[in-house]
Amino acid sequence: MAELSKRSRVRRHPERGLYEREAIDAILDEALHCHVGFVVDAQPFVIPTIHVRVGNLLYLHGSPASRMLRELGTGVDVCVTVTLVDGVVLARSVYNHSLNYRSAVVLGRARMVEDRAEKLNALEAVVEHVCPGRTREARGPKDEELAATTVLALAINEASAKARTGPPKDFDADVDLPIWAGVIPLRLTAGPPETEERVPAGVAVPAYATDFRRSRRRGQPRDEELSR
Amino acid sequence: MAELSKRSRVRRHPERGLYEREAIDAILDEALHCHVGFVVDAQPFVIPTIHVRVGNLLYLHGSPASRMLRELGTGVDVCVTVTLVDGVVLARSVYNHSLNYRSAVVLGRARMVEDRAEKLNALEAVVEHVCPGRTREARGPKDEELAATTVLALAINEASAKARTGPPKDFDADVDLPIWAGVIPLRLTAGPPETEERVPAGVAVPAYATDFRRSRRRGQPRDEELSR
Repeated sequence: MAELSKRSRVRRHPERGLYEREAIDAILDEALHCHVGFVVDAQPFVIPTIHVRVGNLLYLHGSPASRMLRELGTGVDVCVTVTLVDGVVLARSVYNHSLNYRSAVVLGRARMVEDRAEKLNALEAVVEHVCPGRTREARGPKDEELAATTVLALAINEASAKARTGPPKDFDADVDLPIWAGVIPLRLTAGPPETEERVPAGVAVPAYATDFRRSRRRGQPRDEELSR
Repeated sequence: MAELSKRSRVRRHPERGLYEREAIDAILDEALHCHVGFVVDAQPFVIPTIHVRVGNLLYLHGSPASRMLRELGTGVDVCVTVTLVDGVVLARSVYNHSLNYRSAVVLGRARMVEDRAEKLNALEAVVEHVCPGRTREARGPKDEELAATTVLALAINEASAKARTGPPKDFDADVDLPIWAGVIPLRLTAGPPETEERVPAGVAVPAYATDFRRSRRRGQPRDEELSR
């Protein structure tokens, strides 16, 4: 279980705090991308990027020329946050409007991955994180591509998650107002794959593309219940 | 147009950089939520929250007890980032895999909104940002609810946006490989509204809930083209 430091404890709405490692991992695994926070000359920056969790490690990757990766590679403090938006919560009162969401925050310091095997494994894991099954078919990294890729690892030792679920929570005095209240469920959905124009005619669209979906947590609507 | 400072200029993939204010505003307006970066005791934190743009201002809001809002209210440096994920880009080579996305970054220092009219206007704008049409029906804020809400304003004076669009860009040597390549389009979609159980029987589900959608940029697939 991730360490429960004072700085990573959920303060507002503590009832929304999740500290079990399984809950944190499920959010990290479902999210396609994360937001990475770091500080340069006292200015915070927040940059979106793809992540992947492998056991107790979060991997980030990119170009060696990336300012973010160069900064993080020096071992500065970093905050990696992922957020999944699950619904719009419409209460009777403006005050009680909200979003349903699940988010996870990981604090720590990253290290550069130098070991070739770990680097290859991390890059394969990134592709599998986004599109399970893809690494069996895609052309793997060449030595010069590995050299042109920076991979960072961040141990998940200080982390927390937060979630809001369920219907709106209106004040009792508002419940009888003739105002519709409820939740509009939201999810990230995939459309039909768009084949690149030079793909040879005999190459079929793979099932992992036509059936693309993110993992669904219990209680989320099934695909067929989502009209749009 | 937002100032083009050195620190907000897109460095990696400069061809993906968008500095026109219209492009930045469109991303800020479509995104339901943002990620706010700030620094406490040299540690960066990245917290998701709802934002809204009104003209040249970004408004954030929440509880007066929120650590984030209290910190930002003191005028510290902040980075607000929003990201829209538009698709998974599957190239022939693992190296050229990517995501299609649009993101915007706003740097600056926020101020507490003390003026009652501005505060009310900002809270109404937040609700309209998430669900256009809702403020005509929802019960507006009472004085004690206004007092229990902190609103911050951040001028959009230093901002940039970045986007990746289109098909995978494989190396010429890889194009003839018998590997499928293309894009899996993604978007945030809404399911049927879930009515809260105490809503009176005569209150219909409003059209802004049944027809909920985020604005669609040109070139994005239409709803009916999205199977899932």
